[in-house]
Amino acid sequence: MNFEYLLKQVAFIHEIDKVKYILRKTRLFNSDRNENDAEHSWHLSVMAIILADHANEPVDILKVVKMLLIHDIVEIDAGDIFLYDTVASHTNTAAERTAAARIFGLLPEEQAADLTAVWEEFEAGKSMESKFARAMDRLEPLLQNISNNGGTWKEFDVRYEQVLKKKSVIEHGSSRLWEFASELISKSVKDGILKVSS
Amino acid sequence: MNFEYLLKQVAFIHEIDKVKYILRKTRLFNSDRNENDAEHSWHLSVMAIILADHANEPVDILKVVKMLLIHDIVEIDAGDIFLYDTVASHTNTAAERTAAARIFGLLPEEQAADLTAVWEEFEAGKSMESKFARAMDRLEPLLQNISNNGGTWKEFDVRYEQVLKKKSVIEHGSSRLWEFASELISKSVKDGILKVSS
Repeated sequence: MNFEYLLKQVAFIHEIDKVKYILRKTRLFNSDRNENDAEHSWHLSVMAIILADHANEPVDILKVVKMLLIHDIVEIDAGDIFLYDTVASHTNTAAERTAAARIFGLLPEEQAADLTAVWEEFEAGKSMESKFARAMDRLEPLLQNISNNGGTWKEFDVRYEQVLKKKSVIEHGSSRLWEFASELISKSVKDGILKVSS
Repeated sequence: MNFEYLLKQVAFIHEIDKVKYILRKTRLFNSDRNENDAEHSWHLSVMAIILADHANEPVDILKVVKMLLIHDIVEIDAGDIFLYDTVASHTNTAAERTAAARIFGLLPEEQAADLTAVWEEFEAGKSMESKFARAMDRLEPLLQNISNNGGTWKEFDVRYEQVLKKKSVIEHGSSRLWEFASELISKSVKDGILKVSS
């Protein structure tokens, strides 16, 4: 029997195993162990299912989960870029587009086109699904840093104003979650785990 | 503002971080590093999306993915049990039910009931969605063991007959994938990475 179609899918399944080796700057909850992209993508996907009702508008939750499951696959080639990196851009670089073409391109043509489109939609951040997915992506490390008494904020001297600016995109996905997150950020300042500039 | 509902959800999001520390016997592809349950759940979820068209009947893919994302959360309390363990049962033990009640019980009532039902459905393995989800759960370690020249089969002296029996449940989810998997198993014997009994 001809397994050509299936073998392309299996090649992709093999390839994405590498996502498990890509370490983020952020650490697990109450931990000094760095989180990897597979763990991160899993956690965001569960969060999206649990928190979906807080989205500003109803979302196609399957699409949100698809986005979150695959959003970091391009980092196999392009690497992880820290949210507060002031030099490298952290979204949709040329390197990421090349990576998407290579990695999604392992799949049968239609599936490659579908996943590429889902990834592009996430990166563009214009649809309600992508806004909500991105809110998850910003919320998880916020919770992690708080659980780690400041975590990467302390480690990389990130200040309140930067956090507020980067995290405020949560509001585009969910005003409710942003209300919650901004309270957590203020409390972090009060608790001395996040510094204000100057 | 009252965040009571949301705080329950966040408590659950915190708690499930522990899934990242639960090590499986199986190792990553071409690797000697054990896979953890979060990585495993992520990988199976992506596989389900990619391979959905091979299911014996059309499946509600969102439900399949929900099952796969949460199916190992009970192992936070109950621990991972090796598929070929001859003493401990590996599905739906009393310890797993107690764990489900505690961990899903962190969520607001309706969500706790929903996730418990999804987990029970996966464990029962009777719906098409659960059959397909379970096929993913059996297929991934098969691919991993082959990439590792026998992997846990060699490590724990697991034989062809046991593998065939345990993996044959793939057929309930997808005859097509079982056809593929059984060819891989036969090839593994021929390649000398899986031994036949006696």
